[in-house]
Amino acid sequence: MTESHHMSGEEFRRHAHALIDWIIDYQEGRVDDLPVLSQVEPGSIRKKLPPSAPENGESFEAMLRDVDEILLPGITHWQSPDFFAFFPANTSYPAILGELLSAGLGIQGMLWATSPACTELETHVLDWLVEMLGLPDTFRSTSAGGGVIQDSASSASLCALIAARERATGDASNRTGVDRPLVAYASSQAHSSIEKAIGIAGIGKENLRLIDVDASFAMRADSLQAQIEADRAEGRTPFFVCATVGTTSSNAIDPVDAIGSICEVEGLWLHVDAAMSGTAAVCPEFRWIHEGIERADSYCVNPHKWMFTNFDCDAFYVADRAALIRSLSILPEYLRNRPTESGAVIDYRDWQVPLGRRFRALKLWFVIRHYGIEGIRYHIRQHIELAQALRGWIEEDERFEVAAPAPLNLVCFRHRGGDDANRSLLDRLNDSGDLYLTHTVLDGRFTLRLCVGQTRTEARHVERAWKTIRQVADEL
Amino acid sequence: MTESHHMSGEEFRRHAHALIDWIIDYQEGRVDDLPVLSQVEPGSIRKKLPPSAPENGESFEAMLRDVDEILLPGITHWQSPDFFAFFPANTSYPAILGELLSAGLGIQGMLWATSPACTELETHVLDWLVEMLGLPDTFRSTSAGGGVIQDSASSASLCALIAARERATGDASNRTGVDRPLVAYASSQAHSSIEKAIGIAGIGKENLRLIDVDASFAMRADSLQAQIEADRAEGRTPFFVCATVGTTSSNAIDPVDAIGSICEVEGLWLHVDAAMSGTAAVCPEFRWIHEGIERADSYCVNPHKWMFTNFDCDAFYVADRAALIRSLSILPEYLRNRPTESGAVIDYRDWQVPLGRRFRALKLWFVIRHYGIEGIRYHIRQHIELAQALRGWIEEDERFEVAAPAPLNLVCFRHRGGDDANRSLLDRLNDSGDLYLTHTVLDGRFTLRLCVGQTRTEARHVERAWKTIRQVADEL
Repeated sequence: MTESHHMSGEEFRRHAHALIDWIIDYQEGRVDDLPVLSQVEPGSIRKKLPPSAPENGESFEAMLRDVDEILLPGITHWQSPDFFAFFPANTSYPAILGELLSAGLGIQGMLWATSPACTELETHVLDWLVEMLGLPDTFRSTSAGGGVIQDSASSASLCALIAARERATGDASNRTGVDRPLVAYASSQAHSSIEKAIGIAGIGKENLRLIDVDASFAMRADSLQAQIEADRAEGRTPFFVCATVGTTSSNAIDPVDAIGSICEVEGLWLHVDAAMSGTAAVCPEFRWIHEGIERADSYCVNPHKWMFTNFDCDAFYVADRAALIRSLSILPEYLRNRPTESGAVIDYRDWQVPLGRRFRALKLWFVIRHYGIEGIRYHIRQHIELAQALRGWIEEDERFEVAAPAPLNLVCFRHRGGDDANRSLLDRLNDSGDLYLTHTVLDGRFTLRLCVGQTRTEARHVERAWKTIRQVADEL
Repeated sequence: MTESHHMSGEEFRRHAHALIDWIIDYQEGRVDDLPVLSQVEPGSIRKKLPPSAPENGESFEAMLRDVDEILLPGITHWQSPDFFAFFPANTSYPAILGELLSAGLGIQGMLWATSPACTELETHVLDWLVEMLGLPDTFRSTSAGGGVIQDSASSASLCALIAARERATGDASNRTGVDRPLVAYASSQAHSSIEKAIGIAGIGKENLRLIDVDASFAMRADSLQAQIEADRAEGRTPFFVCATVGTTSSNAIDPVDAIGSICEVEGLWLHVDAAMSGTAAVCPEFRWIHEGIERADSYCVNPHKWMFTNFDCDAFYVADRAALIRSLSILPEYLRNRPTESGAVIDYRDWQVPLGRRFRALKLWFVIRHYGIEGIRYHIRQHIELAQALRGWIEEDERFEVAAPAPLNLVCFRHRGGDDANRSLLDRLNDSGDLYLTHTVLDGRFTLRLCVGQTRTEARHVERAWKTIRQVADEL
C-alpha cells in the first residue's frame, strides 16, 4: 500500500513520546498554575477552529500545538490539586497506562468469545473489589450474582431499575410495556440519575417518590414505610428503592440496613448507590458505611471517582444476575456462537445497555496492582483526614458554619451572611481560578461544598483553599 | 507526601515508552501471527489470576508480563488484518493518541462549564462530519438540531426512541409512564439494539413490528405503510421507525426516502441507523446510501467501526434537539451553574443516558486531521474494492454462491452444500486461527459473512482468506 495514509510505527512512537512528556508536564506542573475553572466565554473555542475538516492530512505537531493554544484555555482542570468541586474524577498514571493498552489492543468485549480475557479479567477484578470493600458474597461471580463495569452510576441505576421492573412484572413490562403504576423510592437527596432512569424506563417520573430525610439528610426509613403503605392502599405496585451511601449533595449515608429490612418484607428491589463514597470502605474503619449492604439486590461504586481510575469505570453488582440478563438479553443470529450456547460463559452485553464495550478492566487491574490495597487505603485516609481538618477550621471560624455532617471527604459549609453572601463568595472563589468549588442547597439555604479527592491534593492545597476562602470572606 | 504511593512522572515515562513499544510490536507484528479468534477454554484466564488483590503494590513490569503470558492468549484480535467478523472496530495510531490525551487530561464533559473545550470541540467536529458525509444541514448545531458522541449505536437508538416517545406523548410517558400502546417499526433485519431499546423504554417488545424485507433484505415500504394502518385501526399509536443503512446481517440499505415519506405523512419519528456503512458516504460515489436522509429526525454513524477511531465513538444527530433535551434533562441544584442558566451553551449530559462523559472528540479530531478527508476516502475505497473483488471470486467458483447484494464492504456467501457444510466450514476456518468470520441466516439458510474494514487489511489478506476458504472447502 504505497499510498497508505496510516501513521507509521516510527511516527507513532515519536508522537506518543511527545504526548507522554506533555501529559507529565501537564499533570505535575501546568495544572497547578492554570485557572482551575475555565474562564472562557461560550463559543470562544469554536471560533478558533476551521469551519471544515481538512482535505489532506496534517501533522501531529500542529494538532498538539492546537491543544495548547486553542483547547487548554477551555479546559476545567479536574486533575488540579485545587479541584474541590462536585465529586472528584481522579486518575493516576497506572490508570492512564491501562487506557493506553486498551486503546492499543482495540478489542471488543461484548461477548466472551470476542475476547475471553476481557470478560474474565473484568469478572475477576470485580470479585477482588468485593473482598477489598467488604461487600457481601452475593455479589461475587461465584454466587448467583456478579459484577460488571458500566460507564457510570447513571447507567448502573438504569440497569438496576430495568432488572427490578422485570422481577416485579415477570417480563410483562419488557414484553408488553409498562402496564401498571409501578412506584419507585429514593430520598429527596438521591442523585438525579434515578429520576432520569425512571423517565427512560417509561415508569414515569411522577411515580418516583422522594422520601424525606432526617437532620443528617439521610432517608427516613419510617417515611419510606409509610409511603409504601400509602401507595399500596391506592392500588399501585411499589417495586424499587434506591438507597444512597454518600449523597452528592452532602455525603449523607442512608440507613441501608433499615431500608433493606423494609424491602425484604415488602418484596422490593434494593439498589444501593455508593458512587463516590463506597471507595472509603477499602479502609476497615470506614466499612460501617456499608452496614446492611447484604440486603441489597444491586450496588454500585465508581473507581473512576475516588479510586484513581480514569473515567469510565463504574463497578455494578447484582445479587442475582438472572433478572438483569433476562431483561437485557437479545440473541440475534449474527451474535450466536458456541461458547454462548454452552452456557459456560458470561456475555457482558447482556448486563448493560450498549452492545459494544471497551477493555475497561485493564485500568482498574493496573491501579489495584500498582497501589496495592494498602496504597489505596493510604491515600483515601489522607483525603478524609484533610477534609476533617478543614471541618475543624470551619467550626473554629465564627463567620462560617458546617452545614451537614461530614462523615468522609466532603465538607458542606456556609458563610453566616446568608444566600447572597455565599453565592458571591462562590463566584469570587471560582473566578479567581485558584480553586474550584461547587454548591448545593441544604435546608433551603445556599451551601458551599468542598470535596477532597483528587490524586495530587495534599495538605498544602486544602490549607491554601481555606486561606483563600477566608480572604475572600474578608472582602465580602 | 513522603509515603505517597503514586507512580512518579519518571516511572510513568519509562513504563509508557515500554507500552508504546509493546503496542507497535503488537499492531505491526504479533497480531499477524496470533490466532485471530482466541482458542482458550472458558475459565482458563481466571485460573491464572491470583484469588485476591495484592496488599502491596507491584511493578509495572510484572503487569506487562502478565498481559503477555496470561491475557494475550485470551484476546480475539480485532485489529488483525485477518479479522473479517461482525462489523469492524478499526482503530489507528492517531486515535490511540487521542485516547491517551483524553486519559491524560482526565476531564469531564457533562456540562459545558466542566470543560468548555470538550463540548465545543465535539460540537465542532460533528459539524465537520455532517459536511464530510453529505448529511443534511438540519443535523448541524447551527440549526435546530445537532450532534453528540454516544458510546454506541445502541445508546443512540435508545436516545432516539426516548425523544420520539416524548414527542409522541407530549411528556406524558416521561412524567406518568407509558400509558398507551405505542408502536415502533423496523425491518426484520434491523439491529437487535432496537428491540433492546424498546424493552428498556418500557414500550414492550411486542409493540415493535418487524417489517418484512424485499429480495435485497431491505425494508418494504409498502409493508410498513400497511402495518401502520393496521395498528391505527386497532387503536394503537405508531410513533417511531428505524431505517437501517447497512444492516448487520447483510448490509442491506433500507429505502430511507420512501420510508421517510411515510413517516412525514404519518407523523412518525424516523431514526436512521448507519452504524458501519454511513462512513462510506465520505466518498461521493457512495453517497447514494443516504438518499432521503433529509427526512430523518435522527441518525447515527460509528466512526469507531469504520473510520479508524477507537471505540467508543458513535456520532448521533437529531434534526430537532428540543425533544431529546426535554426527555433527558434534569437539573439538580448541585449541577446548576451560570453558563447553563444563560442558555448560551450545550450541556451534553442532556443528550445521553449517563451524566459523566470522557473527552471523546479528541480522537475523532486527531483522526480526521491526520488522514484528511482524502486519506479516509482512500482507505474506504480500498476496503470496498477488496470486498468487491472477493465477491467476483465467489461468483466464479461454482461451489459457492453470493447470498445477498454486497453494495459496500460486506460479502455474504455460502457453500452450496447446505447448512451443515457451511457450519462446518465456518468452524474449521475460525478454529484454524488464520482468519475470523462470523455468520448470519438469510432466507432461512446459514450464511457466511466476510466484512473488510480493518485498518491493516490489504489485498494479500483478502486473497489469502479466499484461498483458505477454498482449501477448507476442498476438505469438506
